Amino acid sequence: MIMPMKMLEENLNKKVALLLKDNRTLLGVLSGFDEYMNMVLDNVEENSETLNRKLGTVIIRGSNVVRIVPV
Amino acid sequence: MIMPMKMLEENLNKKVALLLKDNRTLLGVLSGFDEYMNMVLDNVEENSETLNRKLGTVIIRGSNVVRIVPV
Amino acid sequence: MIMPMKMLEENLNKKVALLLKDNRTLLGVLSGFDEYMNMVLDNVEENSETLNRKLGTVIIRGSNVVRIVPV
Amino acid sequence: MIMPMKMLEENLNKKVALLLKDNRTLLGVLSGFDEYMNMVLDNVEENSETLNRKLGTVIIRGSNVVRIVPV
Amino acid sequence: MIMPMKMLEENLNKKVALLLKDNRTLLGVLSGFDEYMNMVLDNVEENSETLNRKLGTVIIRGSNVVRIVPV
Amino acid sequence: MIMPMKMLEENLNKKVALLLKDNRTLLGVLSGFDEYMNMVLDNVEENSETLNRKLGTVIIRGSNVVRIVPV
Amino acid sequence: MIMPMKMLEENLNKKVALLLKDNRTLLGVLSGFDEYMNMVLDNVEENSETLNRKLGTVIIRGSNVVRIVPV
Repeated sequence: MIMPMKMLEENLNKKVALLLKDNRTLLGVLSGFDEYMNMVLDNVEENSETLNRKLGTVIIRGSNVVRIVPV
Repeated sequence: MIMPMKMLEENLNKKVALLLKDNRTLLGVLSGFDEYMNMVLDNVEENSETLNRKLGTVIIRGSNVVRIVPV
Repeated sequence: MIMPMKMLEENLNKKVALLLKDNRTLLGVLSGFDEYMNMVLDNVEENSETLNRKLGTVIIRGSNVVRIVPV
Repeated sequence: MIMPMKMLEENLNKKVALLLKDNRTLLGVLSGFDEYMNMVLDNVEENSETLNRKLGTVIIRGSNVVRIVPV
Repeated sequence: MIMPMKMLEENLNKKVALLLKDNRTLLGVLSGFDEYMNMVLDNVEENSETLNRKLGTVIIRGSNVVRIVPV
Repeated sequence: MIMPMKMLEENLNKKVALLLKDNRTLLGVLSGFDEYMNMVLDNVEENSETLNRKLGTVIIRGSNVVRIVPV
Repeated sequence: MIMPMKMLEENLNKKVALLLKDNRTLLGVLSGFDEYMNMVLDNVEENSETLNRKLGTVIIRGSNVVRIVPV
């Protein structure tokens, strides 16, 4: 058994793909998170059906998170 | 009477189909979960009406979960 | 006065129809539940406008539940 | 001043019309409720724009309730 | 400074227009409320784009309330 | 650093534009608020794409608030 | 590891782009925030698909926040 928060911890400083409820995906390095799944990503590239752009650092409110995939 | 969390525990390291609110299904091995139904799935295959792809490990925020089916 | 949780308890191991927010209905035997209305159903048959299939055991996150009808 | 929960209590074993968020109306006898407005209705008749059927006993999760009207 | 709950209290037994999230308006006398903004209205008239009818007493779950206007 | 609640306090008895989730804007004098961002506005004028009307005093449930702009 | 709230603190008095759930973007100086991600922005410029305007100071309810990008 691995706890979800422990799994996030193991991905610190690694590249992840973060899917948000608005269907955007943020690709970036996981720099931090808290118990609400608020997150900090670095070197972020944002992808959606209509755009593709670099965002640098992004702070995400946990309530918008669907899933995190280590990549 | 079997508690839902106990039922999840019995499915640890087994294959499950996880239906999310956005109507996607994730097929994978249940590696972990917590009391919010945040989950870790391994060897994940994602299926929706429009796509079908392998994702490896996925951390899911519990608020997006509709139901889990052992398969 | 009968408390809703007591009513669920009286339907343990009995057949119920569970309506979810996504408008699907799950028909199955109520095997367990907790105070969030997370539930375990066995021998589940799923019905929606577009499909009809057998699912076996299903764990449902309570936040998706609209109502339960003993059948 | 009458508290909403006290008003529910006064309608125990009386007929009410319960409007849900999905716009269905359940007509039935209020048999029980708790502090989340989870409810038990008996002798329920369900009405929506497209259907009209008898359901018997129904347990409703409070988060779906819009309003209750004694009838 | 007047607290919102205090303002509700000042409107007890007075006529108010209650706007709900489903865009219906209930016109009635405010008979009671609690800290979740659950409410009891008496002598209610319901207005929406498509209908206009008298409902008598109505118990409203606070989570559906948008705003209250003394009228 | 100014706390959001402190900023609201500084706007007491001043005119603000309150944007709600249903996309309506209420223009009025901020008379009160609490920690949930429930609010009391006075001398309210409501603006949406389709209407423009005076409402007098309005009590708003905080869960509907998007943002407040001092005007 | 950097906590999301700590990252917000590091951006105090700096320019950020705040994406809201209704898909609007607010560009402004982050003047304050609290643990719910309620925020105060100064010198705000609002951008959406259909408009572009200056708003001055804005208080945002945290539940509407998707993400914050230092710019």
